[in-house]
Amino acid sequence: MSKESNKLSAREMVAEIKAGRLTSEKLVRDCLTRIAAREDTVHAWAYLDADAALRTAREIDAGGWRGPLHGIPVGIKNIMDTCDMPTEYGSSMYVGHRPAADAACVSLLRKAGAIILGKTVTTEFAMGRAYDTTNPHNPAHTPGGSSSGSAAAVADCMVPLALGSQTGGSTIRPASYCGIVALKPSFNTINPTGVKPIAASLDTVGILARTCDDASLMYEAMTGAGSQAPLAKPPKLAFYRTPQWDYAEAYTKDAIQAAVAALGRVCDIREVTLPAPFEQILKSHNIIRHYEGARAFSYEREHFYEQFSPKAQAEFVKADKRTYAEYIGSVLHARECRRLLQEAFGEYDALVVPSAPGVAPPGLESTGNAIFNQIWTVLHVPAVTVPVLKGPLGLPLGLQLIGAYGADQKLLPCAAWVQSALTSSSTS
Amino acid sequence: MSKESNKLSAREMVAEIKAGRLTSEKLVRDCLTRIAAREDTVHAWAYLDADAALRTAREIDAGGWRGPLHGIPVGIKNIMDTCDMPTEYGSSMYVGHRPAADAACVSLLRKAGAIILGKTVTTEFAMGRAYDTTNPHNPAHTPGGSSSGSAAAVADCMVPLALGSQTGGSTIRPASYCGIVALKPSFNTINPTGVKPIAASLDTVGILARTCDDASLMYEAMTGAGSQAPLAKPPKLAFYRTPQWDYAEAYTKDAIQAAVAALGRVCDIREVTLPAPFEQILKSHNIIRHYEGARAFSYEREHFYEQFSPKAQAEFVKADKRTYAEYIGSVLHARECRRLLQEAFGEYDALVVPSAPGVAPPGLESTGNAIFNQIWTVLHVPAVTVPVLKGPLGLPLGLQLIGAYGADQKLLPCAAWVQSALTSSSTS
Repeated sequence: MSKESNKLSAREMVAEIKAGRLTSEKLVRDCLTRIAAREDTVHAWAYLDADAALRTAREIDAGGWRGPLHGIPVGIKNIMDTCDMPTEYGSSMYVGHRPAADAACVSLLRKAGAIILGKTVTTEFAMGRAYDTTNPHNPAHTPGGSSSGSAAAVADCMVPLALGSQTGGSTIRPASYCGIVALKPSFNTINPTGVKPIAASLDTVGILARTCDDASLMYEAMTGAGSQAPLAKPPKLAFYRTPQWDYAEAYTKDAIQAAVAALGRVCDIREVTLPAPFEQILKSHNIIRHYEGARAFSYEREHFYEQFSPKAQAEFVKADKRTYAEYIGSVLHARECRRLLQEAFGEYDALVVPSAPGVAPPGLESTGNAIFNQIWTVLHVPAVTVPVLKGPLGLPLGLQLIGAYGADQKLLPCAAWVQSALTSSSTS
Repeated sequence: MSKESNKLSAREMVAEIKAGRLTSEKLVRDCLTRIAAREDTVHAWAYLDADAALRTAREIDAGGWRGPLHGIPVGIKNIMDTCDMPTEYGSSMYVGHRPAADAACVSLLRKAGAIILGKTVTTEFAMGRAYDTTNPHNPAHTPGGSSSGSAAAVADCMVPLALGSQTGGSTIRPASYCGIVALKPSFNTINPTGVKPIAASLDTVGILARTCDDASLMYEAMTGAGSQAPLAKPPKLAFYRTPQWDYAEAYTKDAIQAAVAALGRVCDIREVTLPAPFEQILKSHNIIRHYEGARAFSYEREHFYEQFSPKAQAEFVKADKRTYAEYIGSVLHARECRRLLQEAFGEYDALVVPSAPGVAPPGLESTGNAIFNQIWTVLHVPAVTVPVLKGPLGLPLGLQLIGAYGADQKLLPCAAWVQSALTSSSTS
């Protein structure tokens, strides 16, 4: 067994443990060693309990087979409740807060054998100010957000898997910036109980991983979605620029168009547009987010308003302007677009779209722009980003694939196929 | 001012307070007096804090105008978090549990001037065993559930308004049994943050009231839906037996058909059917509820399984059989039915359907059958029950009206019109 088990994929870790060539305790120690070496730069963790993780690892090593994530350490975004660790939601309002129960997603991971290594840094309530987490590829750049710590920890090999969440673009965007894989699953398929809400019609628990196969492993453990299998034949793809195409940097447009051309040499890919209602879907996302978000934080707004950052306060000012009638109209509009999109998937397996406007912006104050993610969140369809592109300074850039609602375990192998095809073509 | 202000409508209470003829303190005292006289029989309350309520009432009386529910005492179902009262979710697992924050709905009510009088009895996690709350019309009968205490407290004039919730039929059915009005609103329009989830795609915060106008007052306070106005002309109605019609008692069928005939003399009402997909919508509700419910209680199942009642445990055995593929299929099916239903509302203002199979069953163990409510919950449309029918033993029976998604404030005046029309016709 290699000295650096933390760099394996989760699937490999499980296989090594099952084969008796690796213990969970060794694996946890390797992750902790990596964290000790890098955390002063990366700042991925809001809370770590090394002793508890090692104790659990030894229990797992000494006991029977727990499940598909037997002995695997994972990171949990700090907006998800944990019964044995503080859960502060990235806000001074909840310093030291100890929830009475685990979030459902956390409990399902423990049941599958995972070890909760700690809580990863989130922006304020997954919607406000950013903290000091850096991009493992370059500490002068943001890792993205709001799942900042989860993306950075996985990218830096501190853990193989972590949970994030996405209301706008909080899982896919940081994964793109950090050069890893992420799945923003079909809405509500990962149970949202115990995750601090922003907008109940949008909030989606997501997965940060280093391979599509690892994301699939974790998704199956929480949802019973059935395991995925590699594609039997090349996928049918559709390239969709989205109505937001002009927000992409020139180098992003070039890189995506080159990737589409490369894919065209090995599979069926054609450019598509979506029907007219999709031109307004970003607006509907914003209205739903604002209407629901204005009310979700009612208690905090009444009691601790001054502890919200200026950024969060400015969001509330905008949010309060949204009317009930606008909200209802937006929900109905989103429903119509979901129906049209589901029909479109009769003709192809996945849409190929941008993951983000460009690489991770410099500085830690802004976590970047979610404009290529929000539409897929409100449409409730699965989205996967794979790290196949490069931008300025050699920073990573993802390519996003979108699948039909409920087809998460078909989309992940499709994304793996695309990743493999583009990696071979660029190295050949 | 009458000595029994607790019997007024909430709208009248607010008006009396505004006019200086009633204080909030007097109103709270009258409610507490009623509770003192009746609670030994009704058992509506899981927690009451009379001193805190009176203190808040005096503060409100001494201060400026708070909002549309200025000084009005309300009851809160005990699955909704309150920062200053225990929130036990109807389970021994959470005895003495003190949430860190108010649920959004609770906070929004306080902001509107309401006084949280206490927590009302819920069945176990709003889905398991019933407790000892009785029907105010006859203590040998169930008040229905799971919003047992909220329905009984409002029916018994202990409070003018209370919050309930509905995943299957937990708001409309108890209101029907207790002879009051209820609104199960359009999905997610009352913010669900801080309400213990069963099934996130179904759970809906609901309103128990004694008049449609009071339900509208409370709904507007939490949603900004705009105030309703009385109908300018008779509504266009559609009588829909539903695919579950044969579950209705013979006396229920007779009473509803007589009501439809009476309505036919004063407005446009015709019998309709809905397209074929609606025959399967009850099944889709059950699958969604089971798939989501199996995972929502993951933490409690792992740690405190033996504290679930046999009824809840039996539900989990069924729930665990539901597959991911069944869940995805049911969500897509529900979406299709929502679309078809929204289109149907172009032709009429409201559907007239049963509220429950019959009157409140005898005994306190079963809270009755939700079969006439589940389909409207999964369809996300607003439902109102009005107490216009009578069954055996003189027990009340509601008539349910269903509106288009987002048309809650049109449905409530429509329901008020129907209530008025049927009350006049039966007394004429």
